[in-house]
Amino acid sequence: MPDSHPIGSGPSRHDKIIEGCLQVICEFGVADTTHRKIAEAAGVPLGSITYHFKDLDTLIHAAFEQFVVDNVNWCARQFQGVDSFESAQAALLRVFSPNDKTIVLGVEIYCRALHSEAVAGVFSDWLASYNEIYSRFFDDSTTRITDALWLGMVLNRNSEAEAHPDTLVALALERIVLPESYIGPK
Amino acid sequence: MPDSHPIGSGPSRHDKIIEGCLQVICEFGVADTTHRKIAEAAGVPLGSITYHFKDLDTLIHAAFEQFVVDNVNWCARQFQGVDSFESAQAALLRVFSPNDKTIVLGVEIYCRALHSEAVAGVFSDWLASYNEIYSRFFDDSTTRITDALWLGMVLNRNSEAEAHPDTLVALALERIVLPESYIGPK
Repeated sequence: MPDSHPIGSGPSRHDKIIEGCLQVICEFGVADTTHRKIAEAAGVPLGSITYHFKDLDTLIHAAFEQFVVDNVNWCARQFQGVDSFESAQAALLRVFSPNDKTIVLGVEIYCRALHSEAVAGVFSDWLASYNEIYSRFFDDSTTRITDALWLGMVLNRNSEAEAHPDTLVALALERIVLPESYIGPK
Repeated sequence: MPDSHPIGSGPSRHDKIIEGCLQVICEFGVADTTHRKIAEAAGVPLGSITYHFKDLDTLIHAAFEQFVVDNVNWCARQFQGVDSFESAQAALLRVFSPNDKTIVLGVEIYCRALHSEAVAGVFSDWLASYNEIYSRFFDDSTTRITDALWLGMVLNRNSEAEAHPDTLVALALERIVLPESYIGPK
């Protein structure tokens, strides 16, 4: 992959394909993702995709991996500088308001993970990373309950006409994450 | 459908096909569900399936509908006779421990709903029915948070090696469902 590490600025073709793939998954779902649509979204020649990725499964897997790495980094950033129960609460509130792209891709990974062992690994790594971040600030039970609620709210929000209002999210976290659950930063 | 309402005892062929279809979805997922597998699971001739259901989508839709009706009835039964906060708590604990079949089918409906408007309708009816049952006993915010947690715990449990232990479920409900949330039975 000669252009994986470009000398000039701007994303490499490899990265453009990954980004295009995520865009197509967001818009059409994994089931309707094709080489042709990805090439169009990425603005690259169709043939370059098979040059970089041996098949569609490999590309989708790589795209999900990239998404999870970026999303976990985002989550970790929300907890940067957290040093009190109140600042941890505020960080959780941000984590519980993911953008639409995260919601749609999260759902697609979840569903794909049911039928692909490789993607199942990506999905469980994702959950484990969130778990690891939470567990630096909250006790084990609270971490696990918060995890389940996050998944439920994300997956539910995707299928509801109306997103959960911020006040409901805040109330849920207030009930689940009690001051005595705070143990961090570890 | 001449045998939809059998005179004798035992399930009609129509019902056997529905039941077989749910079995196959549980074992293989919607993506790998075929007429042949359903006929085998139901113990009926292959041709009888196309006689009763015009195509596979129609059959899968009907099977999901049947599952949701049965599951909502089961949920409602858990709340029968509930007349105090404590008995409502106990009912919720039962509802939060669905059997494996419910978990797998719930996940399959969820994923199918993303790409089929008809199944999306079945899925949102399912959520709405649970919501309606909860709301006879708990205030609106608690109902919605409980709903999200249920979905998260069910979907999470499916992808975790180990189910959430009962003590964790009980702790989550204890935190979310406060005595002052109880408003029922309405």
